[in-house]
This record gives sequence, structure tokens and C-alpha cells, in this order.
Amino acid sequence: MGKVECMDDFFKLLHPRPVVLIVAQGRSKVNAMACSWCTPISEEPPTVGVVLARESYTRELILESKEFTINIPSRELLSAVWIAGTKSGRDVDKIKLMNVTLKPSKKISTPIIEECIGHLECKVMSWYEIGECTLIVGEVLSAYADEDKLYRGNWDVRKAEVLLHLGGSVFVIPSKQVYLATK
Amino acid sequence: MGKVECMDDFFKLLHPRPVVLIVAQGRSKVNAMACSWCTPISEEPPTVGVVLARESYTRELILESKEFTINIPSRELLSAVWIAGTKSGRDVDKIKLMNVTLKPSKKISTPIIEECIGHLECKVMSWYEIGECTLIVGEVLSAYADEDKLYRGNWDVRKAEVLLHLGGSVFVIPSKQVYLATK
Repeated sequence: MGKVECMDDFFKLLHPRPVVLIVAQGRSKVNAMACSWCTPISEEPPTVGVVLARESYTRELILESKEFTINIPSRELLSAVWIAGTKSGRDVDKIKLMNVTLKPSKKISTPIIEECIGHLECKVMSWYEIGECTLIVGEVLSAYADEDKLYRGNWDVRKAEVLLHLGGSVFVIPSKQVYLATK
Repeated sequence: MGKVECMDDFFKLLHPRPVVLIVAQGRSKVNAMACSWCTPISEEPPTVGVVLARESYTRELILESKEFTINIPSRELLSAVWIAGTKSGRDVDKIKLMNVTLKPSKKISTPIIEECIGHLECKVMSWYEIGECTLIVGEVLSAYADEDKLYRGNWDVRKAEVLLHLGGSVFVIPSKQVYLATK
């Protein structure tokens, strides 16, 4: 069994990972993008980090309004996720193309996507330019999710069908739980 | 269908996510920890971000040596992952407890874990204290993976059985691919 070099696509070794829909609001437009380069960062305060390309329209809107929402799509939204991840909001009205519904947030001005199963409302805390991307750290002001898709605070993976991005146009859903042989 | 508040465990909405084994080397000891709060950040230069608790021993070793390796475990290593995630290297020899083999890296001094299916060798580029955690940005100097576990540069999820952390002691593996209805 040999090991092969993977430098060209080193990041694929850290996939599959949840894909989320990030919503940002400009003065005249609401936009959404798909992102799987994100991570929780801290619990006190509650923060998350999202990575966006420096030329992305969503990045521009977020740094203007200093807020964004993270929306967790389930399998049914795969087509909308694909549109969000492949079109630019500079050229088209992505929300319309995605055929999703915007709904007011609880704590910030930027809306959430109603059809998603989980939502995080975030206020920009800091951002860092790293290579061709920008890492934006957001403080989570509110978080909520579909009650019937959760089991003891975690996603019920049989009901939630969380979308994970493997690479290119390939997505997977976690469908098998594995257990420790010994604790 | 109602939405429930999730602020106490907001981060669980961004799970399941790949769990990796981070290896760090001090003057007299090699240590490993489990981490699922990590993300690729940029391609030029190739960078990744890993989040560690501020009091973690691995964090201390990484900031001392300025390097670390990221090792991607498959399902067979679940017990080792659990030990890496629940014990502290200050108290025990985790590598020994985990029953894994250290192997020299190609570009840095910190070793990799041979039994893992993928490896990223990283040099610390910068770090940020955020809440109770530290976000360490590493430049990827080398990346390689088991050839027979890959399919066109992505993990072959039927063969690789990448471990995703859902929460607590629950892990899942992605076993179902889903496809776009239209492109």
C-alpha cells in the first residue's frame, strides 16, 4: 500500500465536511454562498470562523455590514447549494435562483434561509487575510435548529441528512454511526 | 415543526466533521490530540487552521517547535482517537496508550502516525487567541495519503471510512453519496 503526494489538492484530505449557506446583506441586495471551509473556534465567547475567497461578493457584503448568518442545509437543498457555490451574486440574484425563502433573524438585520434546518446569527469580531482567502471570525449571537432533526443536542443523522462536501460536485450524507469497542 | 434554541451547544450544528490526530513534538516528548475544529484556509500558500484549547499540552508543544502534523484516521483507529481526545499528554504517554506507530515526516521534525490514511506536515505561520482557544494557522509543506483509499483525488468513502465527530462519544462515517438532480 503506497502513499501518494496530494499537495495540489491537500485540502481534500480534510473533506468531507459540512457545507453551509452563508447569507450576507448589502444596502440593496441579499446574497448567499456555499462554504465548507468553516469551523467553530471558541465557546466563550461563542465564535465560528468562515473562509471566503478575497474577491467574493459575500465577503464584500459581510465586511460592509459586519454581520452574516450561517444556515445548515439538508439533502433536499442540494440544488440550491450547488447554485450558491457556483454562481456569483455580482451577476445574478442567487436567492431567487436558489428558490429559497428569506426570513428575519432574531438578533441581527441579515436574514436566515427558512428551508435550512439550523441557523447561526453572527456579528463580525475580526478577520484575517491569509493567502487568497479571508478568514472571518464571527461571534454567534443566536443559534437554533429544527427540533425534530435533533437528538440530545446533536443532529439525528437519519432525519437531518446533513450535506457534506467531498469535492467537486460530489456530496455525501453521514448515515452510519460507529461506536467505540471499549470506553 | 418548531425551532429550538441551541446556544449552549451552537457548535454541534457544524458537526459531524472530520476528526484528525494532531501530532506535536516537544524537547523530550511526542504528543497527539484529537481535533475536529479545523479547516483548510487557503491554497496559495497552502494553509490550514486548527483550533486548540489554550491550556492544551499539544498547543504548548506546537508553539515551542513551530510545527505539527495532521493525521487523518480511519474507522479502525476509533479507540486511539478516543484516547487522544480524552487524555492529557501532561499526565500520560498518549502515543503508547494509543498503540500507534510514529514515522519520520518528509519536511519537518515532528513525526506522522503511520496507521493514518492521510498526512499533512505543517509549519506554524501565525496564531490567534480567540476566547478560551487558540487558532493556529499552519503552512502545509507536504501532503500525502494512501493511494488505495483515494478516488480521483477525493477520499473513496467506501474504502477510506473517514471518521466524523458528531458529538460526545458518537462518531459517524459517510457512506452514502448523493447527487444533483440537475447540473
